[in-house]
Amino acid sequence: MNNNFFSVLHTDTSSRARLGRLVVNPNVTLETPVFMPVGTGGSVKGLWQEDLEEIGYDLILANTYHIFLRPGEKIAEMGGLKKFMSWDKHALLTDSGGYQVFSLADRVKFLPEGVEFASHLDGTKHIFTPRSVVDFQLKIGSDIMMVLDDCPAADSSDQRLRESLERTHNWAEQAVSYYRSISGERYDSGKLFGIIQGGTDSSFRRESTERIQSLPFDGIAVGGLSVGEGRESMYETLRMLAPLLDADRPRYLMGVGTIPDFLEAVRCGIDMFDCVLPTRNARNGQLLTSSGKINLRNAQYTASDEPPDPFCSCRVCRRYSLGYLRHLFLSREMLGGQMATYHNLFFYHAFMRALRHSIYENKFDEFYIKWIKIHF
Amino acid sequence: MNNNFFSVLHTDTSSRARLGRLVVNPNVTLETPVFMPVGTGGSVKGLWQEDLEEIGYDLILANTYHIFLRPGEKIAEMGGLKKFMSWDKHALLTDSGGYQVFSLADRVKFLPEGVEFASHLDGTKHIFTPRSVVDFQLKIGSDIMMVLDDCPAADSSDQRLRESLERTHNWAEQAVSYYRSISGERYDSGKLFGIIQGGTDSSFRRESTERIQSLPFDGIAVGGLSVGEGRESMYETLRMLAPLLDADRPRYLMGVGTIPDFLEAVRCGIDMFDCVLPTRNARNGQLLTSSGKINLRNAQYTASDEPPDPFCSCRVCRRYSLGYLRHLFLSREMLGGQMATYHNLFFYHAFMRALRHSIYENKFDEFYIKWIKIHF
Repeated sequence: MNNNFFSVLHTDTSSRARLGRLVVNPNVTLETPVFMPVGTGGSVKGLWQEDLEEIGYDLILANTYHIFLRPGEKIAEMGGLKKFMSWDKHALLTDSGGYQVFSLADRVKFLPEGVEFASHLDGTKHIFTPRSVVDFQLKIGSDIMMVLDDCPAADSSDQRLRESLERTHNWAEQAVSYYRSISGERYDSGKLFGIIQGGTDSSFRRESTERIQSLPFDGIAVGGLSVGEGRESMYETLRMLAPLLDADRPRYLMGVGTIPDFLEAVRCGIDMFDCVLPTRNARNGQLLTSSGKINLRNAQYTASDEPPDPFCSCRVCRRYSLGYLRHLFLSREMLGGQMATYHNLFFYHAFMRALRHSIYENKFDEFYIKWIKIHF
Repeated sequence: MNNNFFSVLHTDTSSRARLGRLVVNPNVTLETPVFMPVGTGGSVKGLWQEDLEEIGYDLILANTYHIFLRPGEKIAEMGGLKKFMSWDKHALLTDSGGYQVFSLADRVKFLPEGVEFASHLDGTKHIFTPRSVVDFQLKIGSDIMMVLDDCPAADSSDQRLRESLERTHNWAEQAVSYYRSISGERYDSGKLFGIIQGGTDSSFRRESTERIQSLPFDGIAVGGLSVGEGRESMYETLRMLAPLLDADRPRYLMGVGTIPDFLEAVRCGIDMFDCVLPTRNARNGQLLTSSGKINLRNAQYTASDEPPDPFCSCRVCRRYSLGYLRHLFLSREMLGGQMATYHNLFFYHAFMRALRHSIYENKFDEFYIKWIKIHF
């Protein structure tokens, strides 16, 4: 742990919501709660790196599974992923690849030392181990790395949950001790987060929280939520976890989410988020605005010369109309997805800034009530 | 004809290459030779209007056939296509739709008054006539409109060519007299170009040139080239046409082309060009650079940290590597097409500016020799 890495600047007087500062690398200091756009294979789909800079994102996520398969290890020799994608003045978080192995790869098989799988791209066989995954993330120059974990489906049996928990904890111990042993003076160059699993079972979650937090991780991630368990189960689990989470480490809720998800999770003290929702839904014609969702396939927008969101000051809302955006979608023009992605990520960025400000002003309650009412 | 519309500023001392000025509308004055990017359905694929402005394009082309089918006439009530796509400070040329009817639509049938076809989108039947096509282009607010023509395939029989010629001339007469009769004081609001047809047959071309140029068009387009006749046949036809073309009207070679095409055509006195090549090839992974073509699928670029074109100052070449662009293509990331499109259109724009400068300096011959040597 490095105390310079994360500090809590202020905690809301009426909830666990907290304003924090994350010193990700010598160039990038962020305020939390923070949202990270997903740049799976080295690109946030539809946006230039210049667009992310213009909006104000400094920290994005890339998926280790995808980068491992393509372009692969060779980018280590080319200076790492950040240099490869011209993102070296900014920051990068990489997941461990575990989740994608289970959701995307073929012929997945647990081995004593890790997990074997076949690439969904070309069928080639690979093995991820807790150590190899740390090695790979170090090689590609990740600022924040995740440990390999076993994330079971929401409807898994107790036996499968039990098994996944043992494996996750075992892997976490291997990963962190390996990382400490090899990193030496490099220990400051990338942070390693542990991942809590346990589905929606409170005793499993309790156990996992204790085990993971007993290890010297730089941050604590909550995995295994938003995997199909339903909103209320997710919120209950978060509420149960909230008082158990270490105050001095950043808390990252993986793969979440929606505006209501942010509100609930921040109230439970979560600091970091990532999700494909604003970018994937953008490519499917959904805009997220200050008055809710807009589906561009809805015929009511055909002749609209209104901006998507009159309260938004992004490059799309300042210049283009709903009618034009709808036309781009119906015509399957790339520009439709590009513009919707830009707008949605701009909206998320502005939302998070306003959320942080509300914590700073001890008005998170008000903020929560205002936004939870908007139908998302 | 309106003499303020076009003026020749300088003609090269050793060829027919000429530098001209085109006053397209009160906001847009351009120098020729000029290249127009193709924005088929109201978007240059992969680029924001901001990108076109940044590169320096003021005049783009949209396809009447596509706009007619979608979004259709309703954009007239919304202020026209330029307003719809937020391009109202700039300029728009629209083709007549004829070419797309023959290449894209189904169940095409000539009628005494025009051409009937079924939409390739939904099978609905429509009729284009010389008048309806002028009406539609006026309604959507085109700055430069084209007459309906009949463009036969390169391998058409003499009989088909003869027939197409009669039809093209007949339609041209109807279009221009209709346009003059209805336009009145609006005559200054959009310009109408006639189109010369005749394949690669010199007597047909001669006849067509004479007929089309006898009509009061604001500009003269050469159609029916680059439709499969082969480069040498195209260049021969251009050389044959060169001395026949009116000096005081802008000359537009439709659907062309490549760098060598520009060099040959400018030498023959052509002033305007449009082509999908730089944008379509970009989406297929081809970059056009100062040293020739680059195919991003070529494995030699895998680990390249060089820019696509070290002599290019575009946003792609200043920041991103060939290795990264190749990765984006192999991963089918949208950003690959976006970046390649930006670069190619930047390169074409810079090429045309340099070409104009060479005419101004009476060094077009040198310019021609320098560029024709580069393998495109």
